[in-house]
Amino acid sequence: MDFKNLDALPSFREFAALKPSKLKDNLSQSRIENSHIRVGGGVSYNYAALPVDKTHIEVFKKIAKEQQLIAKYMALLSGERMNTGENRLVLHQLTRGETLSKVEADGEDKGAFYASQLAKIKTLSTQIREGKMVGSTGKPFKTVVQIGIGGSDLGPRAIYLALKGYCVGKNRPMLDAQFISNVDPDDAANVIKGMDFETTLFILVSKSGTTQETLTNRDLVLAALQSTKIPGFDASQHMIAVTSKTSPLAQTKTLRDAIFFDDYIGGRYSVSSPVGGTIISIALGFDIFEEFLAGAHEEDLNALSADITQNAAMMDAMIGVYMRNVLGYSATAVLPYSQAMSRFPAHLQQLDMESNGKHVNRDGQPIHYQTGPLVFGEPGTNGQHSFYQWLHQGTDIVPLQFIGFIQNQRGEDLSVDGSTSQVKLNANLTAQIVAFALGKSDENPNKEFEGERCSSLLYAKQLTPEAMGAILAHYENKIMFQGFIWNINSFDQEGVQLGKKLAKKVLSGCDGDENLLTYHALLSE
Amino acid sequence: MDFKNLDALPSFREFAALKPSKLKDNLSQSRIENSHIRVGGGVSYNYAALPVDKTHIEVFKKIAKEQQLIAKYMALLSGERMNTGENRLVLHQLTRGETLSKVEADGEDKGAFYASQLAKIKTLSTQIREGKMVGSTGKPFKTVVQIGIGGSDLGPRAIYLALKGYCVGKNRPMLDAQFISNVDPDDAANVIKGMDFETTLFILVSKSGTTQETLTNRDLVLAALQSTKIPGFDASQHMIAVTSKTSPLAQTKTLRDAIFFDDYIGGRYSVSSPVGGTIISIALGFDIFEEFLAGAHEEDLNALSADITQNAAMMDAMIGVYMRNVLGYSATAVLPYSQAMSRFPAHLQQLDMESNGKHVNRDGQPIHYQTGPLVFGEPGTNGQHSFYQWLHQGTDIVPLQFIGFIQNQRGEDLSVDGSTSQVKLNANLTAQIVAFALGKSDENPNKEFEGERCSSLLYAKQLTPEAMGAILAHYENKIMFQGFIWNINSFDQEGVQLGKKLAKKVLSGCDGDENLLTYHALLSE
Repeated sequence: MDFKNLDALPSFREFAALKPSKLKDNLSQSRIENSHIRVGGGVSYNYAALPVDKTHIEVFKKIAKEQQLIAKYMALLSGERMNTGENRLVLHQLTRGETLSKVEADGEDKGAFYASQLAKIKTLSTQIREGKMVGSTGKPFKTVVQIGIGGSDLGPRAIYLALKGYCVGKNRPMLDAQFISNVDPDDAANVIKGMDFETTLFILVSKSGTTQETLTNRDLVLAALQSTKIPGFDASQHMIAVTSKTSPLAQTKTLRDAIFFDDYIGGRYSVSSPVGGTIISIALGFDIFEEFLAGAHEEDLNALSADITQNAAMMDAMIGVYMRNVLGYSATAVLPYSQAMSRFPAHLQQLDMESNGKHVNRDGQPIHYQTGPLVFGEPGTNGQHSFYQWLHQGTDIVPLQFIGFIQNQRGEDLSVDGSTSQVKLNANLTAQIVAFALGKSDENPNKEFEGERCSSLLYAKQLTPEAMGAILAHYENKIMFQGFIWNINSFDQEGVQLGKKLAKKVLSGCDGDENLLTYHALLSE
Repeated sequence: MDFKNLDALPSFREFAALKPSKLKDNLSQSRIENSHIRVGGGVSYNYAALPVDKTHIEVFKKIAKEQQLIAKYMALLSGERMNTGENRLVLHQLTRGETLSKVEADGEDKGAFYASQLAKIKTLSTQIREGKMVGSTGKPFKTVVQIGIGGSDLGPRAIYLALKGYCVGKNRPMLDAQFISNVDPDDAANVIKGMDFETTLFILVSKSGTTQETLTNRDLVLAALQSTKIPGFDASQHMIAVTSKTSPLAQTKTLRDAIFFDDYIGGRYSVSSPVGGTIISIALGFDIFEEFLAGAHEEDLNALSADITQNAAMMDAMIGVYMRNVLGYSATAVLPYSQAMSRFPAHLQQLDMESNGKHVNRDGQPIHYQTGPLVFGEPGTNGQHSFYQWLHQGTDIVPLQFIGFIQNQRGEDLSVDGSTSQVKLNANLTAQIVAFALGKSDENPNKEFEGERCSSLLYAKQLTPEAMGAILAHYENKIMFQGFIWNINSFDQEGVQLGKKLAKKVLSGCDGDENLLTYHALLSE
């Protein structure tokens, strides 16, 4: 494989010279109908309202070939050390199923290792849900609380919220899931206030077993558990860990059980590993998590297609790079028309910005183009009453990523004024795509819309576990392809180290640093 | 008063030529200690880590004078029709107390009108909290649910979440508050599932009384209420409205009561009106809401200072414009180190982006400079494990707005490894300010931090109701001043109209529009 910077590719000049396809001239029934790619899990990707046409796609094919996107993806799947900064394998796709061949590392079949932990989750979650594994006073568990931050929080929380309503709609038995993440002590206090500890299981999640926030919150929770005066209550029977085999957490004797993952699963890519799997399986059921994995695995396979018109993740990636580096758009909005996906934009914000917010290439050399965009978003129609004014009439153009579903999850709806809420929701989504794309002229400039605000659409019949898995994998793989295109390492995060180091310095007295001392004084009693 | 575009001011060239103050050269104990402005409610604003020094401030003073910022603010407070697009007064500050003189409009003393509605909230909330006003079956109310969207949702929700922990810390009696906003039927279904309707009061909030989402959710909730088979249950005794006197909602006979506000309170500026006041007073207590108003009023008065070094809102506004238009930073991040403020960034996103996301000036003429930035954020330390990588080492610079508090709200904390969680939280905040500002050089470019990532800090002893009120007013007034500087109307939102219109068109059959028809078909059964 060749690793070249984007601007060193033979076709880069041609790529950089591409003029945007004007939506006002080109959006049409046939364009919409012909701009589909199957994602997996019943999800489709539509790129009709993005500023590209056949000319662009021909150049994209050259870039994809020159940058060897599929070869690099296959190398990653095969266990090459694509995380150059940390010299690690990148194996999150393997948690959803084998794609190419077995991956051996550290003298172990990694696929078999992940499968063994998945089997452990199956047993554990089934025993809990069937009331065979119970709390220390003999009561069945009703609540499960994840203690973790960043990748151990955002993804699992987003997916739990996304699939909870689906399970309610199917009338499935469920445990309540809660999350404690922030080192702010008010976060844990809020979650555990009034909680019935006898029926609660805590899951500590930290790969290294050294995350400051998580260990601190573990101790806060343990103190609360140990202060209960319930006869026979034993805190150690109410806590399990998800961590790496070699971490200090794995050695803790006061835990009821531990499930393992390893350094080859990045935090932000760990939703489909035990980090997400344990809590989803306990709260919603192991079969739900299996369906989620199946949807993700289907998209992982689709992402192997060398034909960009059949590879949604690659197409989305390439158009994103075009809009970032050629059209100069520096941000992108994720707009799910589904309240269940309320925290998915926050997860995607981490996934994308932590992966591709890089200023050096994979070999640590400076690069001379912009990398990952700013990612933000809120569910529609809520966002329409918030920042859409800025999107429609502000002075910047931000590409939009709409997500929509034909049916709701909970099955409760009502027809008001001739249409159900679900139909109104999707009428708004349809309207926004077209309003952003085409705009409207008006004699009064204050009522004029320039249009050419481009958008994509991911959509499915319903937000099922398979659909959610496919959407997640779509974004993970899109971000991976973008990292390959930019020739950066999407799998390390050196940018978070300096803050950690200085925080330790503050806690140990600031070591004479006048700036730290002065700010610290402002924020101290 | 003169209304000129920013680039038509005599000092604009001087403003545009200002070079940024380098933090690596200038950040110091004395700079930090001398860059304070009192906001109100015990909150201070520190701008030491922003790229400005005395030279900049001298030019800012000229711009402030030439653009007549204080005269315009006073005109607004006095009842001039500063909302030019809609030809309306702008009176949200008046809901916190009179500032200059009485405001007469529509043959009415508006201050007296707002005070009368506040008095009504006092009576209503006190009766509910004392169990004197009860549900239709004689049970006291325990839960209050706001049905509203946009300004009727984001601000009240953010403030309720921000002050709930404060009330828990004080051991005050509380009602649970919930919110239904999205037209997605799963939103309402999730909130009302398993709810005890006998002890629940719903508040319908819509100024016009015609908001599609809110009326639809009202009907969804009414259908659920009316299907209860509890003897003696009467749905009309469980619903009140917050609306304008002339709205269709105000005429509804099936409501238990109505509290009024008017067209001079913009939705996104309505937190201190009955839109926020009713639910905050019922859930947390009228005295809490009064303290919140007092904090906001104090900042409204401080914002009257013509001396920018004594006027935090004006300083924040001016530095923001400098960073947007001269340094070219197109986004800004709001980073409260307080889990209680988890939804404040979403409120601020609406407040700022809907107000200043404009492409024409207040007279409807095109302008040739950027206006309001993209606003996003999540609480720290959570964000540190998410998008901070991008902020530290990405290819764009985004100015940061930190918010911090010396004490937590709930009073529960534990010392682990020699420090409490609250101290760890603030050590992280201190560390981040300095890490972003100064960076770190390293032989390995992947571990290098360029620094010069600028930030401001709003801080107080605790997140009290007064502090929250002052922080809210600080941002409202900052945004107002920025609107004056850019010569735009920060109080209308014509950019949301086209989407509404097209959504209606979709619901009535698309009227032959092929794009609407095709997208609609994708999203229909």
